[in-house]
Parts: sequence; structure tokens; C-alpha cells
Amino acid sequence: MEDKKAMKPFMDQDFLLETKSARTLFHKYAKNMPIFDYHCHLSAEEIAKDISHTNISDIWLGKDHYKWRQMRAAGFDESLVTGNGQDPYQKFLAWAETVEMLIGNPLYHFTHLELQRYFGIYEPLSRKTARRIYDRCNELLLTDKSLSAWGILRKFNIYALGTTDDPADDLHWHKKIKEDGLCPAKVIPTFRPDKALDIERPSFEEYMKKLSKASGLEIKDIRSLERALSKRLDYFISLGAKASDHALIRCPSTFKSEREVDRIFKRRLSGHFPSKEEGDAYKTHLLSSLSRMYEEQNIVMQLHLAAIRDNNQRAFASLGPDTGFDASSDKPLAEDVSRFFSRLSETDSIPKTIFYTLNPKDYYPLGTLMGCYQGGGTRAKMQLGSAWWFCDHRDGMEEQMRVLAALGQLPLFVGMLTDSRSLLSFPRHEYFRRILCNLIGRWCENGEIPNDEERLGSIVKDISFENAIRYFGDPYQRQKTSDT
Amino acid sequence: MEDKKAMKPFMDQDFLLETKSARTLFHKYAKNMPIFDYHCHLSAEEIAKDISHTNISDIWLGKDHYKWRQMRAAGFDESLVTGNGQDPYQKFLAWAETVEMLIGNPLYHFTHLELQRYFGIYEPLSRKTARRIYDRCNELLLTDKSLSAWGILRKFNIYALGTTDDPADDLHWHKKIKEDGLCPAKVIPTFRPDKALDIERPSFEEYMKKLSKASGLEIKDIRSLERALSKRLDYFISLGAKASDHALIRCPSTFKSEREVDRIFKRRLSGHFPSKEEGDAYKTHLLSSLSRMYEEQNIVMQLHLAAIRDNNQRAFASLGPDTGFDASSDKPLAEDVSRFFSRLSETDSIPKTIFYTLNPKDYYPLGTLMGCYQGGGTRAKMQLGSAWWFCDHRDGMEEQMRVLAALGQLPLFVGMLTDSRSLLSFPRHEYFRRILCNLIGRWCENGEIPNDEERLGSIVKDISFENAIRYFGDPYQRQKTSDT
Amino acid sequence: MEDKKAMKPFMDQDFLLETKSARTLFHKYAKNMPIFDYHCHLSAEEIAKDISHTNISDIWLGKDHYKWRQMRAAGFDESLVTGNGQDPYQKFLAWAETVEMLIGNPLYHFTHLELQRYFGIYEPLSRKTARRIYDRCNELLLTDKSLSAWGILRKFNIYALGTTDDPADDLHWHKKIKEDGLCPAKVIPTFRPDKALDIERPSFEEYMKKLSKASGLEIKDIRSLERALSKRLDYFISLGAKASDHALIRCPSTFKSEREVDRIFKRRLSGHFPSKEEGDAYKTHLLSSLSRMYEEQNIVMQLHLAAIRDNNQRAFASLGPDTGFDASSDKPLAEDVSRFFSRLSETDSIPKTIFYTLNPKDYYPLGTLMGCYQGGGTRAKMQLGSAWWFCDHRDGMEEQMRVLAALGQLPLFVGMLTDSRSLLSFPRHEYFRRILCNLIGRWCENGEIPNDEERLGSIVKDISFENAIRYFGDPYQRQKTSDT
Repeated sequence: MEDKKAMKPFMDQDFLLETKSARTLFHKYAKNMPIFDYHCHLSAEEIAKDISHTNISDIWLGKDHYKWRQMRAAGFDESLVTGNGQDPYQKFLAWAETVEMLIGNPLYHFTHLELQRYFGIYEPLSRKTARRIYDRCNELLLTDKSLSAWGILRKFNIYALGTTDDPADDLHWHKKIKEDGLCPAKVIPTFRPDKALDIERPSFEEYMKKLSKASGLEIKDIRSLERALSKRLDYFISLGAKASDHALIRCPSTFKSEREVDRIFKRRLSGHFPSKEEGDAYKTHLLSSLSRMYEEQNIVMQLHLAAIRDNNQRAFASLGPDTGFDASSDKPLAEDVSRFFSRLSETDSIPKTIFYTLNPKDYYPLGTLMGCYQGGGTRAKMQLGSAWWFCDHRDGMEEQMRVLAALGQLPLFVGMLTDSRSLLSFPRHEYFRRILCNLIGRWCENGEIPNDEERLGSIVKDISFENAIRYFGDPYQRQKTSDT
Repeated sequence: MEDKKAMKPFMDQDFLLETKSARTLFHKYAKNMPIFDYHCHLSAEEIAKDISHTNISDIWLGKDHYKWRQMRAAGFDESLVTGNGQDPYQKFLAWAETVEMLIGNPLYHFTHLELQRYFGIYEPLSRKTARRIYDRCNELLLTDKSLSAWGILRKFNIYALGTTDDPADDLHWHKKIKEDGLCPAKVIPTFRPDKALDIERPSFEEYMKKLSKASGLEIKDIRSLERALSKRLDYFISLGAKASDHALIRCPSTFKSEREVDRIFKRRLSGHFPSKEEGDAYKTHLLSSLSRMYEEQNIVMQLHLAAIRDNNQRAFASLGPDTGFDASSDKPLAEDVSRFFSRLSETDSIPKTIFYTLNPKDYYPLGTLMGCYQGGGTRAKMQLGSAWWFCDHRDGMEEQMRVLAALGQLPLFVGMLTDSRSLLSFPRHEYFRRILCNLIGRWCENGEIPNDEERLGSIVKDISFENAIRYFGDPYQRQKTSDT
Repeated sequence: MEDKKAMKPFMDQDFLLETKSARTLFHKYAKNMPIFDYHCHLSAEEIAKDISHTNISDIWLGKDHYKWRQMRAAGFDESLVTGNGQDPYQKFLAWAETVEMLIGNPLYHFTHLELQRYFGIYEPLSRKTARRIYDRCNELLLTDKSLSAWGILRKFNIYALGTTDDPADDLHWHKKIKEDGLCPAKVIPTFRPDKALDIERPSFEEYMKKLSKASGLEIKDIRSLERALSKRLDYFISLGAKASDHALIRCPSTFKSEREVDRIFKRRLSGHFPSKEEGDAYKTHLLSSLSRMYEEQNIVMQLHLAAIRDNNQRAFASLGPDTGFDASSDKPLAEDVSRFFSRLSETDSIPKTIFYTLNPKDYYPLGTLMGCYQGGGTRAKMQLGSAWWFCDHRDGMEEQMRVLAALGQLPLFVGMLTDSRSLLSFPRHEYFRRILCNLIGRWCENGEIPNDEERLGSIVKDISFENAIRYFGDPYQRQKTSDT
């Protein structure tokens, strides 16, 4: 099977689209759909202020620990990675050299998609082109209005985005965005009560005080904690929240009586750390209570499973968490997930849930367990989340979609999210859509599904945008502005 | 590598056959081979009676929990899924709508293969076509003789099939089929003593009484239990049984003395439940004894590993087991399998064994462990079972065959089985054969194996049918009938 | 997508090279690169003596337990597999028949690459061709000088190779090769202290005596053991050693005080076996000490994880270890690896490390954990080792490279090794390079990376050879000989 097809140019308009059907689906149906980026880590404050950056080095390398990892692997000293006071161009140059090593890595494509879509730059980044590209980007950052926060939201047709927020947060900037009614995108909070669940954390007591204050309720037992969280959830919902989010290595599944959990919680408040089993019982109880609240309030529960964090003690001591020292866990998780959700099923209190995992080996257990909790009249109530973090690359996205299709229903998939801290990450939706269209296009050309352009186009539009709106619900009604 | 090849029509005669070699192998060698469906869940009674169905809705949706899962995921109310008294067309329509969501799912292809092969219907099922297809199927069910049980067995060239049966079953219908000698296929029982192994089951004592009665032996200790099972196995063999079958989450591997196991068993008979460790010791002991019997009697042992069942307590309470609430387990299993078979090796009593797993992550440990128990003059004595249940789709079947080929010997593979409760499932063999021919054809076209049509054709015939006959043995000699 | 491309001939010069770019990369850049086979199990003595074999059956079947496994699976009696006194041709014939069953298995390609490259034989091996091929090989073994050990090293352009050696070994033959300065390849030892770590082994005490003798130091406590190992490591380094090697099912990670470990070790010396936890603590402590030594001496640490060995007690009793009864383990390993390396990070004593695994499910945890220990100015200090043992096949190699690229930096990969006991295994480097070039070529043709032949050619050369030299360091400077 010698291949005599014409070579495709590097990342042109038909990037990743290997068949005619794929190209039709992407250009005619996917490309122009709006984006609901329902899970990201953008700063509501920066959006509210419509900030502009002035240096590409800051944007790309200021907080992106994906890139930091790769720069370390490429042999650069930490001073060029996270160091302060370095010449930004030297950092950029180090990144350019790193990019040369990244063929086959998603950062290679993300980097060049960002250069193309934000800056109109189509040449590959390397040591040779670094200076020219750096200068051009910075020039545009100063002069091109479409590179401000709002400019970007408009340019990429961002309909709405969900940030990630602590229950104790006052959501000042979300409120302001909503009240002003001028921002081109709806910016809604996501309820992420990790600190309330993490009873082993040294600062747990302190956090409880913070939460007491935020909720205006004295937290002194498990019931008052639940009331406080419920009150904060109401507040989040009043600002458009459609989802919660939980980072868990594994799903807790130790069921103990409320009385016992109350005892564990109270002892922790007075400084006594729980045993491992007690900690799990606390988490199981609280996550169950939260699940019930989500179910009642029609809030989606996102579970991010199987990350093993802070694996380098030295780096943790000097740089703290979220600096590029996390990895995929490989523990079995099916039994815990089964036990937790089976128990929830008894009281019919399973909320809409998205399972994300950092290890592709979990797609089968999660994708099949999902099927055990579907139903109750909601379409695809349980979802297998888009390929996450380390899995979020071309092969990984295709794998997630193939397994989802084989075990469940791809046309009902809520699709892509950026999970990003950067306003430059929106082309990942394009990347995802290209991979989606390529997959469906290939099935079509191969006679595996009917060549029904209208139906396939509709599926592509649903996965690109419509399903997310249907699943999460449309965020608050934005006031019209002259711009939109 | 832009693809300019012609688009293939939807599921035509060359479905899934991407190269000329693949097409030659399938049409010339695979297509017309008989079928030995050595593991299914068909009802011997329904076959003996040569039953006919009258409604496509009943056949498709009456007991197929694969489909039920998908209907729930598509948002349909349980009343349309498993409810009684519903208009069968409403159920069919719900299924048609579900099918629209199943692109990339094996049920999509199974459904359309069934429409094509049984009913001569070549248009895709959807809400639009549902009425027409429903009516046409039902019309044919009433009028087309090739749609009775025997008609189907003839049409699909079913040489033999192995049902799944409890040791206490009297095999009345198997006996009748054999004695009558008129059924177009040999219908043989498979020995599945799950209830004898499952000492934790509440109804275990009751089952022991049933088994006592069936065997005519009083079961009062572990030895008499073994004798009773041995006697039942003899009876199964007298009706053509060639295989046993065990559903296990994991392989038991706790070795205790016979005396200790006897004590555990007797205590259980008097109502005392064993500890987890004791339960495992009992299972280990009994499965070892059964293995020895199988080895002595040349009976194949099928181990179905890594299913985690009944994950939804609420559904279990209302619907019972096998209603669509099972999933892939993800526990490590290599150590247990190694310990169990290593111990059997000491007494040279490893039977021919097929390892099936519900989680593709197990293919490497199982596929390599297999290699540790091969030999003794039997060709491919240990087998990696065909992609099972949730894995039984195009990507999954290809993965199973690729891994098997990489770790073992694909040409000695015993091939496909339906594992189905429905007489409409036989086209899955065709599906499997297409995937097989496509894989081998691709290797051939790519210069990875010699282009020796005779040899490759012979391999394809072996995997399609001949290997299963060689491996299990030819079931009882059927008397000739005028029909065959 | 019907495929109308021309069929490729069986294993011709463009074997596995599916695109023009792949062919250019392989033929122009990869093919002629020297080989640094940094991890193998060749005998330094056989090389020092420039041995010649006289019978293809001995070479292929004398110690290759990969082949033994397959012969057993093909149904051959053990006497034809490992038996003594058999007619070598009968064994060869049994192997030829086995080969017929190996389509899709790496041994199929390895066998034919060896016939092509060593013997100029291009016809497929089968029962039909066995006699002719057997005779021709044996004729050439007697007459062709390029088939002696040195002839082979020259023919395959072996720049250097690393054997696998016990710390107590006197390395007599390595010394001789180095001193003579005539061998065409640099032959260096690799430090493999498995026996010093395996405190559960019955012969542990005996081994300690052997190590005492080899080091000239009395080993009576943990400190003197470390000094002895350090002294032996120095000696290995004096003969060019660049790496150590450890076979571990899992990474030890039980940290106890030196005093406690000293107590465990001393008790073991006096015949008291440690508990499981104590054993792990000993291993953790010693592996930590060794890691520090490696880091200080710039020695690469190779960790071979996830093999589960000796799974057939009967075979072990009659044939011993390494006879074809090993398998892929499937235990989780991320937590242990994280704990061990995180602790090492605290004292900045992580050496250059290569993680190999026998189970592809570990690529994600290992490939992401790797990223947590990169840095300190070394390029790709942590490496995901080439697809190992059962994973070392076409699909497996491509998978390892795809995952490595997606998680790390493929261009910095140290590439292939044979891990072999046979001088006939060098074409595996060619096999690897073809797969590498095919992968990169496909990305290029598909527009996923720039079509920059110079850059891609340079990457291919790096992965084929240069990276290994840079990573391990160039072995001792060989004296020029008239031959080279």
C-alpha cells in the first residue's frame, strides 16, 4: 500500500482533514459554530477589565505549566522557565528551541494554531524564526484591537465560558460582567468545592472560617457545612452557574452514618486529623450531599479523576502546586465509582455527570459505568468528558471519541472545552472540531455510516456547540450590545 | 495525504473491506464458511420448537440489554425500554431514534446487517424510515419461512451452536434436538457452574439441594459436591458438550487445604457465610477441581473475566440482573491468574482455556500469561477470547486480533462467537470475518506478509470455522436429514 | 475509501515505508547510521573470541525463549523446543512450521530480516522452504567471514554495545576487548545489581560473600554493602560502563531509617528473612543509595518495570528462569514511582533514568511522571524506554513513539536497543528505524509537521544513533585498527 497521494502543506486550511467529507463537514458545518467553553481557568477579572497583553512571552510562558514541563525536558534552566527578571525574549527563544523538539506533541499544533489565528503568522516557530515572530507578535499586541480580551472573545465567537471558582469566592467580577452587560461573552462561574472536601489539608480549618464568612452561616457541624455550601451554590446559580467541578484522584466510596461523619468533621474542626478511612467517609458523605444538591438544582457535576499531583517534593517546596509536576494515576477506579453512584441511585439523586480521566485506560470502565446511570428522561445524562490535559492531543481526542462512540452515543457528546488559563487557547476548539470531522468523514467515506450530509452536518454542529447548550442550559440572558 | 479515493457506498457487499486482497479473502474464502457459534445464550427450547417470531420489536427489544442501555442513554423513559403493555411500535420507534445516535457504535452495524441479511432491507433505520421498516419486517416474519428458528439456522449455515446451561439443568430440549435429529444445527450444552462456585450467594444452599437432586447424589461435603458436578459434566458431555464457562470478576487464587475448604463449605451449608478469604479459598479449590475434570475430559474452560455487575442498586431492585447495568472492571488480574494456573501446572492439569476479558487493558497480561501455559502437544491450547461484549466492535475486534497476533498466533485463533440471546445475531460472524479479512488483507497489500492467496485463504477459513472445530472437537454426529 | 494503491512486495527495500517522505528519511538518513546497542545480553566472551556458529538451528533456537514460547503454542513437544540431543534440523523444521503461524507477530519480521540481511535469503520460511534455507544458512555460516562475531559487528556498523553484568563479575572479557583494541565495536559492561537488591532470594547470603570477595571489602552492614557496590561501580566505569540496569516488578517505595534498614540487612545475613514491608524498605534504601551513586558518576539508571516472572511452576522446576514463562504485570505503579523519585528529588539525586515497562498501559503514568523529574540542564534526562520485550513489535513501537511524542519530546528519544542474546538481532534497529521514519514521514505528508527534510533527517539520525551517544556518553576511546 505505497502511498502516492499528494503531500499536504503544513497546517493549511485543510489541516487534519483527510477526506472530502471531512473537509465539507468542517468548513460548512463546524468552523463557524459559536463556542461554549464550559470549563476553563480564565480570570473573570481580566475579562471584566478587557485586558490587553503587551508581550507574547508573558502570555505564553507566564502561567502555562504545560509549556514549563517541556522547557525543562528540553534542558533549560529553571530560571528561563519560571524565573523572574529574565529578559522575556530569552524565555521566548528557549521556548522556540523547545518547540523544535515537539513534533507529534499537541503543543506543537497549539502553538502554530495560535500564531496563525491570532497573529496571522504561518511560518513554523524555531530558533531561526524566533526573533521575527517575537517582534511581530508584540507589535500586533500593541496595535491590534482584536487581541484584547473582548476582541478575542468576539473574534472566536465565544458565546459563553465557565470559569472555575471556589465557593467562598465573592464572584465580584462575574457579577460586574453580568450587570454591565457589555462583554461579548457570557462569563459564568463554576462551583468547585475541592477545599471543602479536602479534610486532610492543613488549612482546612482556616478554609471553613472563610466559608462561614462567605455564607454568613456559622459552620460547626456537617449540616451547617452543607447549608453553607448550598447557600453558596444558590449564589453561583444566580450568576449563571451551570456546573460544579471536582478534582479527585479516585471517587470516594466509604459510607458511614451521618452521625459518624459529623463526629469526624467536628474533630477535624478542633484540630484532629482523620484516619484515611474517616477522611474517605467524610468525602463520600459530602460529595453525596452535593450530588443531591446538583441534581435538585439541575447543575452538572464534573468529576476530574486520576490525576496524581505534586510528584516532585523539591519543586513543590520551591514553586508550589500547578507548576508542571503532575501526572496520570493508574489506580483502578471502577469499583469506587460503582459503589458511589449505585448508592446515589437508591435515592434517585444522580445529577448530570461528566467523567474526565487523566488516564486513557479508564475510558472502558468509565464509559461502561456511565451506561449504568443513564436515563430518567435526560439525553446522555452521563458523559465521558473530552480528552483531558495530557490526553488532549490528536491521537488522544480521537481515541476518546472512538471509545465513546463504541460504548455510548457520540452524537450526544457535549464536546470540547479548553481547561485553559490563557485567552490564546480558543483554537483548541477548532483543533477538536477538525479531529471530529475527520473521524466522521472517514466513517462516511468508508461506507460505515450513510453519506447523509445534512444529518452528519447536524451531528457536527451539535457536538461543536448545540449539545453543550442543551446539556448545561443556556447561561443568563445577555443584554444586547451594539457590538453583537 | 489528502485522500482522493472514491467514497464507498453505505454497507454494501464490500463493507469494511478496504483493499483488493481483503475483498478476495472475504468473498472467496470467508463468506461461505459454516458457523460454529460455540458460545451463545440461545434457548434450546425455542430452537427445538422451531419457533417463529411475529414482531420485530419483540425480537430486537424483548431481551437485548445492549439496546436497553442505549435507549436509556438516548433519554427514553424506562416504560419504553423494559415496560410491559407498551405499543410495540412505540418501542420500535424509540429504538429507531436511538439508532440515529449510534454512529460508530457496533449496534449501528449489527442493526443494519440484520435488516439486510434477514429482511433484505438496505435503507438506514431512522425515525423517518421506522414505520416502513417495522411493517416490512413484521410482514416478512409472518410469511418468510427462512425466518423461523430452523430457517435461520439453515440460512446462516450454522453447523453447531453451544448454549449456556446450569449443571442442574435437565437439558431436556438438547436431548430432544439430538434424538430427533432434524434440527439443521447441532445444539450442544455448555457447562456453566457459576452457582456452584458463588458461595456468597444467598440462595447457595437452595442451589445445592437442586444440584443434589439433579445428580442423584447427596451433597454434604466438598467431595460429594465434586462428584455431583462430575456426574453432571458427564451428562452434559453425553449430549455433546465441548466446553464449560465461568463468569469471574477475577481468577480466585487463595489456596487452602482440602480439609479447610471442606470446613468452609460445610459451614456454608449450615448457613454460615464465609469471610472474603474463605470464599476465595472455596472458589479456588472448586475451580481447581473442575479444571482437572475439564482437562481429563478434554473440555474447554472458558473464563469470562473483568465484568463488574449490577452497578445500579435501584435498577437492580426493580429489574434484576442482566438488564443493562454491568460494566468493565479495571482491577489488576495477572497475579491471580498466574497463581492459579501455576498451581495447576504442578499437577499437569491445565485444560484447554479461553481467556475473555471485558477490559482491553487486560489483553497484554492475559495474552502473555497465555504463553506461559501453552504446550503439551495441543496447538494454541490457551486462547485469547474474541473481543467480548463491550469490546465487541470494529475497533475492539481489530485490537484483540492485533494484540493476539503480536503476542501469539493469530492463525490458530478459534475466532468469533455471538454470546447472544437472539437468533438475529448471526451476522456478527460476518462482521468479524470482514474485519479479519481486512486486517490480513492490509498486511498483505502493505508487504508485511507474503501475497500467498492460498495460504492466507486457508488461514481465514481456519479462523472462520475450522479452528473451532479442531479446538472444541466436532459435536455429536448429526443424523442426515432431507434438508441438509 | 476503497484502496486502489499498488500492492507492495513482501519485505522489500521499502518495507514498512508507506510514503515518499518515509522512504527518503529512511534511505537517506537512517539506514547508514551506526548502532549503539546500549542494552543487550550478548556474551563478552563470545565477542572477545570472535566466535563463529556453524548451525542456524543453534543460533536461532539455542537460547531464544521468545521462539520457545511460540513453538510450544504451535503444539510442539518440549523435546523439540529445549530438548538436548535432537536433530538440529528437526528443531529447525518445527520452527519453520511455527513461523507459518506468526503473521502479525514481530518474530515473523525478525526472522525474515535476519534471513535477508545475514544470509541474503529472500523467500519466506515455511515447511516447504525449510530444508533449502537450512542448508544455505549452514553453508554460509561455514564459509562467510562476515558471519563471525566481528564480521557481524562490522557489517551492521556496531559502534558500541552494552552487555548486562553482575557487580561481582570480573569483566575479564570486557577488559581483554578493551586492552586488545581490535574488536570492531566498543563492548562495555552494564551494572546490574539485581542480586544485591533481591533480599528475598534464598541465595542472598551466598551472593553477599561473592560480592565481598569481588570488592575486597567485608560486607557486614548496609554501609559496607554500599561501599562494595560503589567500588564495583568504579571498576565497571573504568571499563566504559555508562549505565546500570534494574529489573523490578514495581518501584520500591517504603522509606525507613538507615538504622532500621541496617538491622533488616544484618538479620538477613544471619539467615532471618525479612517481612514483605522490610524487604521493600531494604530495596528502597539500597536503590536510593545506588541512584545517588549513579547521579554522581553520571551513570544512566535503567528501570525495567512490570514483568511478572516464572508463572509456570512446573516449567520453572524443570527448566529454570528465562525459559519463556514470563508475562506482563498489570499492577498500578505510578504511586510507587512517584514516591521514590519525589524523595530522591529532595536531595537532588535523581540520575538520568530510563523507564521501560512490559505493559503499554503504563505509558501514560510513566510518560507523565517522567515530566515531573526532567530538568537540571540535562536534555530529556528522563526517558520512556523503547517498546520492550512483548511490546517490541510494529504496533507496539509505533504506540510507544506516539505516546512519547504526545507527552514528551520524540526528537530527544535515545531510541532502540536489542535486549537480545543473539548476534543475529541487529536488524531490529533497522526495523525500528523503518517504523520511526514511517511515522515521521506520515506526519509530514499529512501536513502535521513542516516538510523540512534537513530538520526531519537530522531528527531521524539523532534517534537512530546520536542521541544515545549524547545521553550515555561516548564509551572508551577505541584504538584505531587497520579494519576500521
